[in-house]
Amino acid sequence: MRATGVVVEYNPFHNGHLHHLRATRTATGADIVVAVMSGHFLQRGEPALVSKWSRTKMALDAGVDVVIELPYSFATQHAEIFSRGAIALLDQIGCESFCFGSEDGDIEAFSNTLRFIKSNQEQYDQYIREFIQEGMSYPSALADAFKKLGNQESVIDLSKPNNILGFHYMEARDLLSSSLKAYTITRESAGYHDEHFASPSIASATSIRKSIFNTDDQHEISSYLPESSVKELDKYVHEFGEFHRWENYWTMLQFKLLSSSKDELRDIYEIEEGIENRMVEYARHSLCFEEFMIKLKTKRYTWTRLQRMLLHILTDTHKEDMRERHVAPGYIRLLGMNERGREFIRMQKKNLSLPLISKLSSADPRSIKLDVKAAEIYSLGLHDPASRKKLLTKEWSQPPIII
Amino acid sequence: MRATGVVVEYNPFHNGHLHHLRATRTATGADIVVAVMSGHFLQRGEPALVSKWSRTKMALDAGVDVVIELPYSFATQHAEIFSRGAIALLDQIGCESFCFGSEDGDIEAFSNTLRFIKSNQEQYDQYIREFIQEGMSYPSALADAFKKLGNQESVIDLSKPNNILGFHYMEARDLLSSSLKAYTITRESAGYHDEHFASPSIASATSIRKSIFNTDDQHEISSYLPESSVKELDKYVHEFGEFHRWENYWTMLQFKLLSSSKDELRDIYEIEEGIENRMVEYARHSLCFEEFMIKLKTKRYTWTRLQRMLLHILTDTHKEDMRERHVAPGYIRLLGMNERGREFIRMQKKNLSLPLISKLSSADPRSIKLDVKAAEIYSLGLHDPASRKKLLTKEWSQPPIII
Repeated sequence: MRATGVVVEYNPFHNGHLHHLRATRTATGADIVVAVMSGHFLQRGEPALVSKWSRTKMALDAGVDVVIELPYSFATQHAEIFSRGAIALLDQIGCESFCFGSEDGDIEAFSNTLRFIKSNQEQYDQYIREFIQEGMSYPSALADAFKKLGNQESVIDLSKPNNILGFHYMEARDLLSSSLKAYTITRESAGYHDEHFASPSIASATSIRKSIFNTDDQHEISSYLPESSVKELDKYVHEFGEFHRWENYWTMLQFKLLSSSKDELRDIYEIEEGIENRMVEYARHSLCFEEFMIKLKTKRYTWTRLQRMLLHILTDTHKEDMRERHVAPGYIRLLGMNERGREFIRMQKKNLSLPLISKLSSADPRSIKLDVKAAEIYSLGLHDPASRKKLLTKEWSQPPIII
Repeated sequence: MRATGVVVEYNPFHNGHLHHLRATRTATGADIVVAVMSGHFLQRGEPALVSKWSRTKMALDAGVDVVIELPYSFATQHAEIFSRGAIALLDQIGCESFCFGSEDGDIEAFSNTLRFIKSNQEQYDQYIREFIQEGMSYPSALADAFKKLGNQESVIDLSKPNNILGFHYMEARDLLSSSLKAYTITRESAGYHDEHFASPSIASATSIRKSIFNTDDQHEISSYLPESSVKELDKYVHEFGEFHRWENYWTMLQFKLLSSSKDELRDIYEIEEGIENRMVEYARHSLCFEEFMIKLKTKRYTWTRLQRMLLHILTDTHKEDMRERHVAPGYIRLLGMNERGREFIRMQKKNLSLPLISKLSSADPRSIKLDVKAAEIYSLGLHDPASRKKLLTKEWSQPPIII
């Protein structure tokens, strides 16, 4: 059995993901697709629309064979750490390859870029530092530093979001000395952040979420999702009363900012340079999360970076909590699998060097503490107390989903 | 000008309070009544029905001349510290006397009781320790220890709630070597915690609040409140959309319990003996504050004591925050006054040894930090974002109310 891996958030699973999934099988010739998926909170520092359980179900229904969780301590990080966690897990679970979507679509160009940057690493890092000191955001500094190294042939455009992620997957593979073979597939039409519906069947997850929250009419988006996703989204709202978004957590965030001392806030992961003072001040004078973010946003801090900081404030994740968790995940948490996936896991089980966690109650509670806390806090975003309790206790009782 | 003091919560101001106010003037012969009033949070560890500003207005409308705030660090404490803060402030602001309502109604009996306990202090304290070790609550231990000292003539019944408070006022006066003259008035009909309406015009604040939350029909309670109180309560709901109660803060409390580490919780004032473990566990499985409290309650911990612990968790008040604030308040915060009250304050101003705070923006922010935080968190109990912001910023901008 040959397995390939994909790194996903499926927020929610849509036709573009389906396309990528099928193209991954074709390109890699694998029998098994393993998805390493962010849990309840995502790389942009946002709560997922629906729980990881619901998103696992969508993935399995659409043909993914195994879904494992990218832990909170990797899933809510900038691209470098995020990628390292994801690639390490795919490597550990026994994939032969991985395959990512990118604007560029040429795996050689990724290798060239990585090689070129590595051979100019010192100069590259210095440019980045300079640009950041000038007040540039980290992603812009990265792209501009690369540009400043001079024109190269057959390299990728490092200002494109999927190229950036792909580059970091390649970098992670290199850093981890992994033997995973890398593939990339050109992304069809919709860009990562696109908010418009450009194609009749493919739209970005961002535009789909926007439509969900703006109209509450899921029929409008149904042509962009597999039917199984539409069904699962309907089911979630029926079961828990609503979707999750930052606004659901606004009162808690406001409460946390206004009740914590500045010392406590400074101790939160990624909080630095006195930004906690502005956060507390704006928490006092904002009516909602969006107003708060608009006030807080500056050129130096990207929306994403601010959201990640605020997420760590919400989950009370301290610098100390993250300190030793950056290298690679210490466990593999199984979220779901189909028949083929079960066979694959059965075969891999004896070779795994990391503990495989199927049920939380059997896991060492310390190792998985941040994920559990994140899941509990995610559930508090539901307004209905009974739904909240149901989702909260699910984290402890839910075995991997099997279809 | 002769001033007397009363210690109040006015939650809300009702006919029983009006009776006490008039009887106080008669008994003491004072021209001025100064009320030292708890802020947004009360001695039983609860949010007040309406803000301190609204309760100040009720007090002034009913004839109180000056209202000053009992700081959070005294207002939310057991009777001993609560009383010390209140008596110290009445002494500092220049009252000649103070007057409290009690079940007993005989000031000599209070003096006798205090004298008798002081002359048996060692034995008394030992009995209390023994009873607490046997699992008794602190108030029960106090009353039973007193009983065990043997029958005395002309002492008070220390199992009655207003007698207990009165006893602690007397003790505080003694401890502070204050020259305040003490008066007591027999409380008319309704006991402190009564939930039934026994008299046609006097009902306890507890029963009034219960009726407000159970029926949302304020007409039913209007015969127990002065018209000015009814008007003020109506105005509050009109302006802010709702009254405050613990349920409004349940999500925040649940969030705080589930997001904090056990170490952080143990660092909260009054948290001890591992009760934080049960709190976190029940926070996971309760749908509302009441269900949570019923699960948490034991014989050892009174409802009131638990609510105070939870309040300190809500306001993130650490052991360290309270450490040096127990002796006596370090400032006098003026909440409101009438014409006579202004004249009194003008006369006293030059003699005051404590800073008199009229506007928060002119106060030393450190000294009043806990009150401000409590006020901000109190305002988060409002669901409507605009009302919340309005109340939140009021804490910073509201000058003393003048009628």
